[in-house]
Amino acid sequence: MNTPLAVNFEDVKAAAARLRGNINTTPVLTSTTANRRTGAQVFFKCENFQRTGSFKFRGAFNALSSLSPEEKKRGVFTYSSGNHAQAIARAGQMLGIPTTIIMPDNAPIVKREATAGYGAEIVLYQPSETVREDYCRQRAEERGGTIIPPYNHPHIIAGQGTTALELIETAGKLDLLLVCCGGGGLLSGCAIAARELSPNCRIIGVEPEQADDATRSFYTKTLHKINNPDTIADGARTPYLGSLTFPIILAKVDEMVTVSEDAIARAMFFLWERLKIVVEPTGALATAALLDGVVKAENRRVGVIISGGNVDLKGAIALFEKC
Amino acid sequence: MNTPLAVNFEDVKAAAARLRGNINTTPVLTSTTANRRTGAQVFFKCENFQRTGSFKFRGAFNALSSLSPEEKKRGVFTYSSGNHAQAIARAGQMLGIPTTIIMPDNAPIVKREATAGYGAEIVLYQPSETVREDYCRQRAEERGGTIIPPYNHPHIIAGQGTTALELIETAGKLDLLLVCCGGGGLLSGCAIAARELSPNCRIIGVEPEQADDATRSFYTKTLHKINNPDTIADGARTPYLGSLTFPIILAKVDEMVTVSEDAIARAMFFLWERLKIVVEPTGALATAALLDGVVKAENRRVGVIISGGNVDLKGAIALFEKC
Repeated sequence: MNTPLAVNFEDVKAAAARLRGNINTTPVLTSTTANRRTGAQVFFKCENFQRTGSFKFRGAFNALSSLSPEEKKRGVFTYSSGNHAQAIARAGQMLGIPTTIIMPDNAPIVKREATAGYGAEIVLYQPSETVREDYCRQRAEERGGTIIPPYNHPHIIAGQGTTALELIETAGKLDLLLVCCGGGGLLSGCAIAARELSPNCRIIGVEPEQADDATRSFYTKTLHKINNPDTIADGARTPYLGSLTFPIILAKVDEMVTVSEDAIARAMFFLWERLKIVVEPTGALATAALLDGVVKAENRRVGVIISGGNVDLKGAIALFEKC
Repeated sequence: MNTPLAVNFEDVKAAAARLRGNINTTPVLTSTTANRRTGAQVFFKCENFQRTGSFKFRGAFNALSSLSPEEKKRGVFTYSSGNHAQAIARAGQMLGIPTTIIMPDNAPIVKREATAGYGAEIVLYQPSETVREDYCRQRAEERGGTIIPPYNHPHIIAGQGTTALELIETAGKLDLLLVCCGGGGLLSGCAIAARELSPNCRIIGVEPEQADDATRSFYTKTLHKINNPDTIADGARTPYLGSLTFPIILAKVDEMVTVSEDAIARAMFFLWERLKIVVEPTGALATAALLDGVVKAENRRVGVIISGGNVDLKGAIALFEKC
């Protein structure tokens, strides 16, 4: 007997209802150049324009607004030095929920400040000595708080799924949907929505070649793990899929593909130069699979999810040197 | 007796009808950070997402699609090394009209190639020896072609006015509208639309301090001219307003303001980093006036027109060094 999946389409619809009026309805951009280069009709869903600069706000707001009044009062804890941290902090700020973010003490000061700027309490730990999940659990238990992890949580997955729901509502049914994959929250949520709203759509997850744990896990049906993978796509450095996201990906995703570091940088450059949007490396993964010919898209209606745009501008230009 | 203005609101509406389905309906972005910094409610109309990367496509398509079949056959000529050149070339390509662009022989090769890529014929001239308008006129006369200048043309002005028309249709009535000003095509067209659709809106033109010919002309009611002004906002290097745009600006615009080169660079940085959009220096002029406090906007509903996003990415980063 199969265990039921942690999230279904009704959960995604419920998340969409909670998010309405609280998130940015991000634009779906098209590009004649992208269409000409690929022979496809491409729809870019631009979550770099989401609140806090990435899709992460969807899951965070959905999870926090689903808490009981008592849980809200005791506050929320999470561990992240990236987009999830800012998303939780901002959602907490909007909903009046205290938030505590566990960050490694070597996290860039700019990220610490951005997260603190949304009113979160930042607790630093020494990554060499502490496992962050354990450290977070201890801090949360001390105060009776709720932990909202970055991806392995039903409300997070359902919230991220609203990205594909909105895309298909705007662009119509798709033949292909390309979604980047780190811990699998965005990919699993989007797969649930797309499978329902556009049943013939082929759903493809995209990872960096150098962080292909989910691709290996998908094809072997066994969880693979890669610690500290060396990729510019920092959002895809997550070492493994979650216990909730992995089964959904196995059940709903059609294919996993990988792209090289150069292809990621070239896709980023294309998005900045031609689409005029600032996209972070992870946000360019799905575009890289399309432009690099890893995925054949000719004559197809293709949805591409741009996951976020939080990137150091000056650092990004260094990536463009070879482009 | 007053001479009637060259363009009225009916012309802008007619342009909008011609453009429908042929242009990108560009997004209107909002930003919590921009609202917090200014105390205003700000609506950014993003023409960097327009076809060919700037609002110029609106006027070009409107002018070219208004030609008679005979004129279309004989082709269109213009002089520009910038956004107008690409816009004319692309509109000609879409409408099957031959286009010839007169460019200085020192124009960046990337701009020549982009324009040629849209199927235009590029004719180079030596800027030291030739006045470009005269040179263009001679070439056009040889072939019986029509000259479509960059801004001083009724169809160009009416086409550019559709930018404000769309913005107000999306955002609703405004208290302030900020528009950058070079030759005045965008400003005069937008002023006509805004004056009609949002009668109490204060319409403000923005120029670089170092290229303030229109500001001087506006306040003295006499045409001022600045040759080769030294500003990073290349779209505002136009030496003077046109014979058609100047009277419209005098009649419809409430105020002209100027911003420093540093303020332009800072506004550009803000738009890239926080709004996640790639904007060229000229495209950041209106934002600069808002963020730098040149215009008081507290508690107002403010429309800001982002004119374009065609900029060398690597070069732009140099501007950000001080930001």
